[in-house]
Amino acid sequence: MRDAYSDQLDAIRDDLVAMTRLVRAAVGSATTALLEADAALAEKVISEDAAIDALRVKIEDESFELLSLQNPVAGDLRMLVASLRMVSEFERMGDLAVHVAKITRLRVPELAVPEQIVPTISRMAAVAEVMVAKVEHIIQASDVAAAEELEAVDEEMDKLRRSSFRELLGSDWTYGVEPAVDIALLGRYYERIADHAVSIARRVVFLVTGEQPTYV
Amino acid sequence: MRDAYSDQLDAIRDDLVAMTRLVRAAVGSATTALLEADAALAEKVISEDAAIDALRVKIEDESFELLSLQNPVAGDLRMLVASLRMVSEFERMGDLAVHVAKITRLRVPELAVPEQIVPTISRMAAVAEVMVAKVEHIIQASDVAAAEELEAVDEEMDKLRRSSFRELLGSDWTYGVEPAVDIALLGRYYERIADHAVSIARRVVFLVTGEQPTYV
Repeated sequence: MRDAYSDQLDAIRDDLVAMTRLVRAAVGSATTALLEADAALAEKVISEDAAIDALRVKIEDESFELLSLQNPVAGDLRMLVASLRMVSEFERMGDLAVHVAKITRLRVPELAVPEQIVPTISRMAAVAEVMVAKVEHIIQASDVAAAEELEAVDEEMDKLRRSSFRELLGSDWTYGVEPAVDIALLGRYYERIADHAVSIARRVVFLVTGEQPTYV
Repeated sequence: MRDAYSDQLDAIRDDLVAMTRLVRAAVGSATTALLEADAALAEKVISEDAAIDALRVKIEDESFELLSLQNPVAGDLRMLVASLRMVSEFERMGDLAVHVAKITRLRVPELAVPEQIVPTISRMAAVAEVMVAKVEHIIQASDVAAAEELEAVDEEMDKLRRSSFRELLGSDWTYGVEPAVDIALLGRYYERIADHAVSIARRVVFLVTGEQPTYV
């Protein structure tokens, strides 16, 4: 009985890592589609979001079954409750990648991102992708130190967001209202992806140490 | 023992309802501050968000204690896991009210919302408030029918969001980039408040019926 139980716990952790990988691929592809006005790739991100949602349901079912039937305690209980909450965050990250893809789709064959602001938006996207990759590692290795480092990366995201607003609202912004609205929303989506990454990393710290991160 | 357990479950439900009330007040005040350029009220929304966050921690601690010590099963277990997830959503709704307040603060003594688009934004805010009020009732009364009605209200929100974009991007938008960016983000914040309300209502349906809502 105990062995089946351990196997079930391991299966949930494996599914969580698989979900992280799907989210990472979605964020990466959404960015590529955005910066290359690639309609087919944007469609792929939108249609493949269903796989992320399905994995969410699978992990929820598995976690709930274990909670109901095995009465897990202490660390295992914390792990199950945390995974139920992490899957919600991963699902949202997938949705945000879909939002990026939908802005892309709305503007093709044009690029949604005007040339002037490509460096800032590319950097935001790169930071978001790095953060998702780090979360994958943090979950897999229960790496508390890496979770703490993630906060510093998130600070760069905040700086980039502020700098994108300065560009949009500066006197040399000649692209008008529509691209400005797109950029404001894109910035929001990448910022939220980063926020979710930080939040998931904090849950891992709590799981491993039993304490809320002191740098919160 | 069983009585203390029931009391603890009731306490968690009461705290959830209290949290809904705080969120409802935050959304209402944020809107009033926005439409009246009321800096003091915006500050109040921002500073009082700490009370919402504190209630989240309290409910999490209570739920986790009950999960650890009482091995709840079936309906009670579902209720506890659902409440752990609902508090995350309420906390986000509070954060979104803070975002509305921060846009207000950035623009005072000016109004962030240009006169032309006040009807649309006021209506979005009113719909969001109605949805939060309905969620309070749905949780308190376990009202599945009201939860289903919420989906229809959310459709009005989606229509308002589309109509706000038409106004921003229309040829008679003479206010320039900055108010357009503010409105795009405000629309996003109210839309997300509505999304969270729908998501919480669906969790209540699942709690009461044991099944995912069929209208999802």
